Amino acid sequence: MAKRLVGSAIIGQSGGPSAVINSSMLGAIKTLFSKEEITRVYGASNGIIGVLNDELYDLNLEDKNELELLKYTPASALGSCRHKLPDPNNDEYEYKRILEVFKKYNVRYFFYIGGNDSMDTCNKISMYLLKMGYECRVIGIPKTIDNDLYGTDHTPGFASAAKYIATSIAEISLDTRVYDYGNISIVEIMGRNAGWLAASASLSNLNGVGVDLIYLPEIPFDLEKFIDDVNDIYEKKGKVVVAVSEGIKDIDGKYISEYATNNREKDKFGHTQMGGLAQYLASEVKRYTGAKIRGIEISLLQRCAAHLASKTDYDEAYMAGVVAVENAINGVSDMMVSFKCTRGSKVSDYKCEYELIPLEKVANFEKTVPLEWINKKGNNVNKEFIDYILPLIQGETELPKVNGLPRFAQLKKIIVR
Amino acid sequence: MAKRLVGSAIIGQSGGPSAVINSSMLGAIKTLFSKEEITRVYGASNGIIGVLNDELYDLNLEDKNELELLKYTPASALGSCRHKLPDPNNDEYEYKRILEVFKKYNVRYFFYIGGNDSMDTCNKISMYLLKMGYECRVIGIPKTIDNDLYGTDHTPGFASAAKYIATSIAEISLDTRVYDYGNISIVEIMGRNAGWLAASASLSNLNGVGVDLIYLPEIPFDLEKFIDDVNDIYEKKGKVVVAVSEGIKDIDGKYISEYATNNREKDKFGHTQMGGLAQYLASEVKRYTGAKIRGIEISLLQRCAAHLASKTDYDEAYMAGVVAVENAINGVSDMMVSFKCTRGSKVSDYKCEYELIPLEKVANFEKTVPLEWINKKGNNVNKEFIDYILPLIQGETELPKVNGLPRFAQLKKIIVR
Repeated sequence: MAKRLVGSAIIGQSGGPSAVINSSMLGAIKTLFSKEEITRVYGASNGIIGVLNDELYDLNLEDKNELELLKYTPASALGSCRHKLPDPNNDEYEYKRILEVFKKYNVRYFFYIGGNDSMDTCNKISMYLLKMGYECRVIGIPKTIDNDLYGTDHTPGFASAAKYIATSIAEISLDTRVYDYGNISIVEIMGRNAGWLAASASLSNLNGVGVDLIYLPEIPFDLEKFIDDVNDIYEKKGKVVVAVSEGIKDIDGKYISEYATNNREKDKFGHTQMGGLAQYLASEVKRYTGAKIRGIEISLLQRCAAHLASKTDYDEAYMAGVVAVENAINGVSDMMVSFKCTRGSKVSDYKCEYELIPLEKVANFEKTVPLEWINKKGNNVNKEFIDYILPLIQGETELPKVNGLPRFAQLKKIIVR
Repeated sequence: MAKRLVGSAIIGQSGGPSAVINSSMLGAIKTLFSKEEITRVYGASNGIIGVLNDELYDLNLEDKNELELLKYTPASALGSCRHKLPDPNNDEYEYKRILEVFKKYNVRYFFYIGGNDSMDTCNKISMYLLKMGYECRVIGIPKTIDNDLYGTDHTPGFASAAKYIATSIAEISLDTRVYDYGNISIVEIMGRNAGWLAASASLSNLNGVGVDLIYLPEIPFDLEKFIDDVNDIYEKKGKVVVAVSEGIKDIDGKYISEYATNNREKDKFGHTQMGGLAQYLASEVKRYTGAKIRGIEISLLQRCAAHLASKTDYDEAYMAGVVAVENAINGVSDMMVSFKCTRGSKVSDYKCEYELIPLEKVANFEKTVPLEWINKKGNNVNKEFIDYILPLIQGETELPKVNGLPRFAQLKKIIVR
């Protein structure tokens, strides 16, 4: 029996938005509200930045019905950040500040929803508080549409993005087939170093026409071979739909998108900003085929399209929040909620259980698509990938609508003074 | 009582795809199947091109359950075209060919689903057949996401595109607000000379945050004023979402997108191909604000997103097909189905009735957004526009799903030999 720890809780959201990150938050908040150990529930404005700035929202003051809408509300209701904490061995300033704010509000529970970088933040805070002898239970709640988190079957947010991508590509594919002339469409999909989202384009073929070729960052990209692949299908069928991950790299590890433009900015984690790849590849293919060709960037919509979220995804995201809180109350700390899933011969055989794994095992590792799930030609994925992902996209959103349009949560976000 | 006319029917689809053009086709086909006067129902492969090439599908051979799925299937199931018939006074070749094919199959009913150019095609064929003394009833069924058809309250396809645009912009708007730094998003929306679709972005504000500024082709575009507008909101709120119609033009009538690139192709109707505008405007704004800015092109998805279709839209589209056939059977020809709608103080007061108007009144006219529905600053629309469009986007799609993904119609398309 763990020691009973009484105090307030902070929850924060970090990294890129997703369709279900707020569902995780709702799961955590509602569970926190139900616990006698929790004196108050605060939301950090823009993740760890909100802690550093002492900008916390008092979530106990929110309307309960409005909070319920978080389950279906995309993006990050509390605001997010991409702030990288320094190495605590070199620079303790921000850690001291975090401790100061935690002490001010008697924060004994800290929940952080995010991806690789966020789990790194979580882990560093946890280590620092431990070193300083400040008792606080720190739990990471996984979230990334990129699905590149180590130690979990998959991550909340991925399946909804995948469902959006697959549905959109099925629709795009029908659209591009209507004319009697040849047509090539190149669809650019998010994913910096892991091809999970681009691979999910393969789902578009399950109920009819969809995608013909898929290129992932896991396989070195060869422009000549790519043009040959496209041309082969173009000559056979006259219509080609291609999905490319924004993160495809050549044999030397250089992003193909860097060829598209030399004017790239880097974010604080040293990641190069992506974009413009589809147009670049389209112009290269056009040189050889002369076909009508279109580069399509699905852009932000793939990560925020709550209207096509997977019910399985937001239910699991919600449970991740619940499990995080239950474990913290029971004495667990320094851990991230992870999913352990089993699949059978039928989609409905799928089962998901929740485990906790050490944050340090997750932080800063990237899980990529297994090479054996990619076909030999390196231009599509195998049945193994479909078997993996199909259960995750099941079920439709119950997003409430007013006047035919989504009704998303509108929080009051009252700052604690 | 009209003369009873017995023979076969051809239905064709023309112009750009939409989410509901197949719903109109289904309405027509099912009504044709029920009529004793109709000996056979043919679908033209790629619109009038299929007639010219004698490539007709025997729709009586299709599976009835599969046909039912057409109601929810986007794009053009029979294939479409952008073929412009010559002036029959100068060149009768294609008209003779059409008459030849009509005679071969004893075609006495011709239904053509499309926009301005398609109604022109319809009208020319009708006039020619009349001149040649070949009895055939020709009815146009309206379709265009652009909503620029004259003589009808609105066109099938518009509302579904509008619903998609409004929903997507609401989601994009939430997404762009998550970080603690400034952010400007410029969303490019289809619409060559009429701003109906860009105006529909205004719906995104009804249930919360959405779009801040809207620019339509109806108002001459001034780049300096645009940058001032954006900057004003950026300084006040730090986040700006802008919707621009692809067809915005400067005071001299030159498309702004032409400044973006000099490498434009024209289609057979002399229309300049659009695109790249959002990126161009984004780079112009970036010069002055230094803000993080993103150009987003919703691209094909706005016209083919059946997953967000309006039930009102596909029900009306269906009825347009039914009404076309009923009228043709009753002796009407040379007409297009048009919508006469009334609106009251409540959205549910909306009523739509179906009328027939002469094709010649529709062909080649473009209906634009009334200037009095645009605000004085020329950067948004008024309540009148919302009152007009809101009833049209009501109701959700009943698109059947298999494995969490849309199950669209897959026709056999058996060519008549």
